[in-house]
Amino acid sequence: MSTGRRRTRGSEQFEPVAGNGLLDRRLLLRSGLALAGVTAGVAATGAAAEPLTNDPWTLEMGEPTPALQVPSRFEKNVVRTRTNPNNEFRNSHARTPHHLLNGTVTPNSLHFSINHAGLPDIDPERHRLVIHGMVKQPLVFTLEQLSRYPLVTRMSFVECSGNSAPLFSNEPVQGTAQALHGLVSNAEWTGVPLSVLLDEAGADLSAKWVIAEGADAHALHRSVPMKKAIGDALVAIYQNGERLMPGNGYPMRLLLPGYQGNMNVKFLRRLKVVDQPAMSMFESKTYSQLLPDGKAWRFHFLQEVKSFITHPSFGQTLKVPGLYQISGVAYSGNGRIAKVMVSADGGKSWSEAALRGPVHPQAFTRFDMPWRWDGQPAVLQSRAWDEAGNAQPLRKDFVAARGETQKPVTNPAAFPNQHYNSLTSWGIGSTGEIKHVYA
Amino acid sequence: MSTGRRRTRGSEQFEPVAGNGLLDRRLLLRSGLALAGVTAGVAATGAAAEPLTNDPWTLEMGEPTPALQVPSRFEKNVVRTRTNPNNEFRNSHARTPHHLLNGTVTPNSLHFSINHAGLPDIDPERHRLVIHGMVKQPLVFTLEQLSRYPLVTRMSFVECSGNSAPLFSNEPVQGTAQALHGLVSNAEWTGVPLSVLLDEAGADLSAKWVIAEGADAHALHRSVPMKKAIGDALVAIYQNGERLMPGNGYPMRLLLPGYQGNMNVKFLRRLKVVDQPAMSMFESKTYSQLLPDGKAWRFHFLQEVKSFITHPSFGQTLKVPGLYQISGVAYSGNGRIAKVMVSADGGKSWSEAALRGPVHPQAFTRFDMPWRWDGQPAVLQSRAWDEAGNAQPLRKDFVAARGETQKPVTNPAAFPNQHYNSLTSWGIGSTGEIKHVYA
Repeated sequence: MSTGRRRTRGSEQFEPVAGNGLLDRRLLLRSGLALAGVTAGVAATGAAAEPLTNDPWTLEMGEPTPALQVPSRFEKNVVRTRTNPNNEFRNSHARTPHHLLNGTVTPNSLHFSINHAGLPDIDPERHRLVIHGMVKQPLVFTLEQLSRYPLVTRMSFVECSGNSAPLFSNEPVQGTAQALHGLVSNAEWTGVPLSVLLDEAGADLSAKWVIAEGADAHALHRSVPMKKAIGDALVAIYQNGERLMPGNGYPMRLLLPGYQGNMNVKFLRRLKVVDQPAMSMFESKTYSQLLPDGKAWRFHFLQEVKSFITHPSFGQTLKVPGLYQISGVAYSGNGRIAKVMVSADGGKSWSEAALRGPVHPQAFTRFDMPWRWDGQPAVLQSRAWDEAGNAQPLRKDFVAARGETQKPVTNPAAFPNQHYNSLTSWGIGSTGEIKHVYA
Repeated sequence: MSTGRRRTRGSEQFEPVAGNGLLDRRLLLRSGLALAGVTAGVAATGAAAEPLTNDPWTLEMGEPTPALQVPSRFEKNVVRTRTNPNNEFRNSHARTPHHLLNGTVTPNSLHFSINHAGLPDIDPERHRLVIHGMVKQPLVFTLEQLSRYPLVTRMSFVECSGNSAPLFSNEPVQGTAQALHGLVSNAEWTGVPLSVLLDEAGADLSAKWVIAEGADAHALHRSVPMKKAIGDALVAIYQNGERLMPGNGYPMRLLLPGYQGNMNVKFLRRLKVVDQPAMSMFESKTYSQLLPDGKAWRFHFLQEVKSFITHPSFGQTLKVPGLYQISGVAYSGNGRIAKVMVSADGGKSWSEAALRGPVHPQAFTRFDMPWRWDGQPAVLQSRAWDEAGNAQPLRKDFVAARGETQKPVTNPAAFPNQHYNSLTSWGIGSTGEIKHVYA
């Protein structure tokens, strides 16, 4: 980091690693990375030329310190988008604004939420969790009693299996990463291993299923394989350090790391150990995904390996040519992310992105790739692999296997809308405008 | 996990590993851990005896789904406690309620905050960061320009060096973990390595210091050693995934992992590369800690290894004898936590706690120890070691080296109030009441 090198460096010294300006990811954090290409024209002005003390916040006492912090008023656009803000008698979706976030944690205020009967106002003193069915001893737990059991803490994503459904359309739907992929979020969850509670009740291990039921008016219930229930399943009671948000299951929810969101039953009040699945609406209809050959996926739980770019993405604009950081999130229900490849030429050439560690299983991993935009059209894509060897399918392969939606929709019952995990492509125009494209 | 074992298990089968009921931590998550001692009397009732459907939230459509989630109204006590709620013309402290949290992340709404001139209402479009002084090329950055640099993401605690100051008193101050230790929090921070920005400006590495200055009316400034500045220092622009909270430095702050909170300059507007420290008020006076021998610590930056128990702790009550989980947080400015020992008999005997991994450097690590409370008085303590081999000092050694406050205070100038990192002791009474004690 001597002072003499700077003038001799320039972006022309970076060898591209793939087409359309992708640069060697090993450059990312090397001291001496010449970002003059980014800032020389726009940021590098003499400090003395900028007055530093005339802004009102430098001159006056500020606002009171609140009991609960909230974001700056200048961040008023960083909110969840909602499908049912007037709380009509139907379900409500609230989506995470991934294009405005960074890092890996989704703050609790912005965790996605789907509620089928509004937000229940549950009194935690009255709420009970019952374990019954094929058990030696039925048990009833209060929240306070659960809190005396051994707790574990882990990062985990939760994803609605209908996340990214717009990408089944045969024409690219224009929308932000929030609009397209906002039904997945990532948090630190703390809870009691379900295996401990099932053991406490003396569950019959020859039983194959545990039916989980929620306490809201929808009484959503799903059948969980016993293998998952005695595996890494938790009864979660804290989210990013504090009690669960009402929209994420307060005061307790099932957490099934990597399984479709709907199975992570919120407001959990009942676990029944049984030898047959419940065949509830969500498993017999909603999440029995019809396939092009007329067959259907049933009890297909795992959220497959997936990634999408959040920066740059739809809703943002590249103001000037130069160096940018391509970044996004990757995750897999199968475990850890093994690698992410990035393309800037619509899939003609690829290079491996850097992963911001530590890489947790069934959790968001953020990836980065330096990129020099030359002001010409480009198509940015990411493709993830997990530690089990699964890769995100290319779009043509995905559509061949899973179908797509022809407009107008002539047979809504056959509308494929679940478990989309193919690529997302952002087209950069010569003006710096970004569109959702298929490539 | 057969159904036949349960009746033959009882808490009497657990071999204690230290005095007063500490149990083997390897039991923590073993399937088959008999917690009948906890729940047989209080939780295990027939499921059929509990009506499940008469609570209003099971019968009626709930509330609207909000754009920004907030906690349940039943969690209204989970807030920061404030020293200046009316925003008088002095500083404001807001403390994290550790006794009500679990896991390791501090949610943004509850991250501690100290503001010396209220909360500045900074327009991020107008805010600038200047790097000048002993540099080849002074630079001015907007937030948008900073966001185009390579970002790194990491967990880190931030702790005010005055945290835990009440424990310098020669009589134990009665208060929660929030009141005693609420000026430390832990979050996922995302930002630009300061080394990259200093290199960009062509900083002279023979300079020994970088003076960091904030943009609020206090214009707080601190001198940062060049070694730290080009080490792991970040200019942080995201906190737990979203933009910084106003009370935590919006739109950008310095993050110096493991260094005293005050140096992690918020509202960062200026970095001046110099060869002499600034000798600002906070370094020449406030954080020059006087020692019993009349000398003082100057430029003593590192927050030492520390731990405290959050569960059980002051403000909670043990309702019945039986099995409990002792849990708390440990952290060190030196790096990772290596081990935490727990005592239930005021330090006569100790046993090693389990750590909830992954263990990150300069970040909260939660520890756990199962404990059978027999209904008799007990004194709970934790003591942490870091990977550099440092241990939390015992109280008698700490007081001998650092002093304590005799009441009444006769010489306020000599009041020791910084860098407390000795033990915290919670005394359990035979009624289950918990007090802060010295042991």
